[in-house]
Amino acid sequence: MQLTRAADYAVRVMIHLAGLPPGARASRGELARAAECPEQFLSKVLQSLTRAGLVISHRGNTGGFELPAANRGASMLSVVQAIEGPVRLNLCLVSEHSCTRQEWCPSHGVWAQAQEAMLGVLQGVSIGHLATKVAARNGNGALTVAP
Amino acid sequence: MQLTRAADYAVRVMIHLAGLPPGARASRGELARAAECPEQFLSKVLQSLTRAGLVISHRGNTGGFELPAANRGASMLSVVQAIEGPVRLNLCLVSEHSCTRQEWCPSHGVWAQAQEAMLGVLQGVSIGHLATKVAARNGNGALTVAP
Repeated sequence: MQLTRAADYAVRVMIHLAGLPPGARASRGELARAAECPEQFLSKVLQSLTRAGLVISHRGNTGGFELPAANRGASMLSVVQAIEGPVRLNLCLVSEHSCTRQEWCPSHGVWAQAQEAMLGVLQGVSIGHLATKVAARNGNGALTVAP
Repeated sequence: MQLTRAADYAVRVMIHLAGLPPGARASRGELARAAECPEQFLSKVLQSLTRAGLVISHRGNTGGFELPAANRGASMLSVVQAIEGPVRLNLCLVSEHSCTRQEWCPSHGVWAQAQEAMLGVLQGVSIGHLATKVAARNGNGALTVAP
């Protein structure tokens, strides 16, 4: 019951992008360094983030990855789910019919409650908020600027 | 980020045992039926529960698995952890030195908070309490008796 490395890297990438000036693009290499992630592995992560509409991938010489301004408000949960799909703490929470014991099983409700508690925390924190914390630590009133 | 099937079965087994009269023993076959789990697979689960001291395994003709009365108070979390080991939502929560970014990473605290929220729910519910809910549903004032 642990987050995948891919989801962890995705959050790191998103925080880095949210720390760049509006409209700025970052190369895959820059993002790999920022996320401390092997560049090859990051390709799949970036594909998933792009597919989910969280980042925009630009091709060509001036290409790179960009975080649309509106997506600074994306929650940590939305980033995790872009990589892992819907988080379901137990199989019985996948759908109304995923466990035959659902109607009477006393633990079903507890799994649901535990999942809700966890997801509530991840839902309540935006990537933009995390980026401002990095900027504040770096002594920047404004957000950090890409190296 | 999903509970293993083994941990889910372990919780089912513990609830069944907690529903038996004090001192009663259940065979592996009975537990497999109650948990709707393949008997072979359940062997490993029962080994882990025994090793963790949550159940007692008796050998011989009158053998079987028993839940010591004191362990009716065991939490769902303790059962999960008997199977999966300590639950750590992200690698950075494994130890103080498991991630070099820990000191400044803004998401570290959020992962910790999400984990705490989830574990708090699982910690707060005892197996005995869940067994009494099954008994109440079955119309028994007392706990359910083994078939």
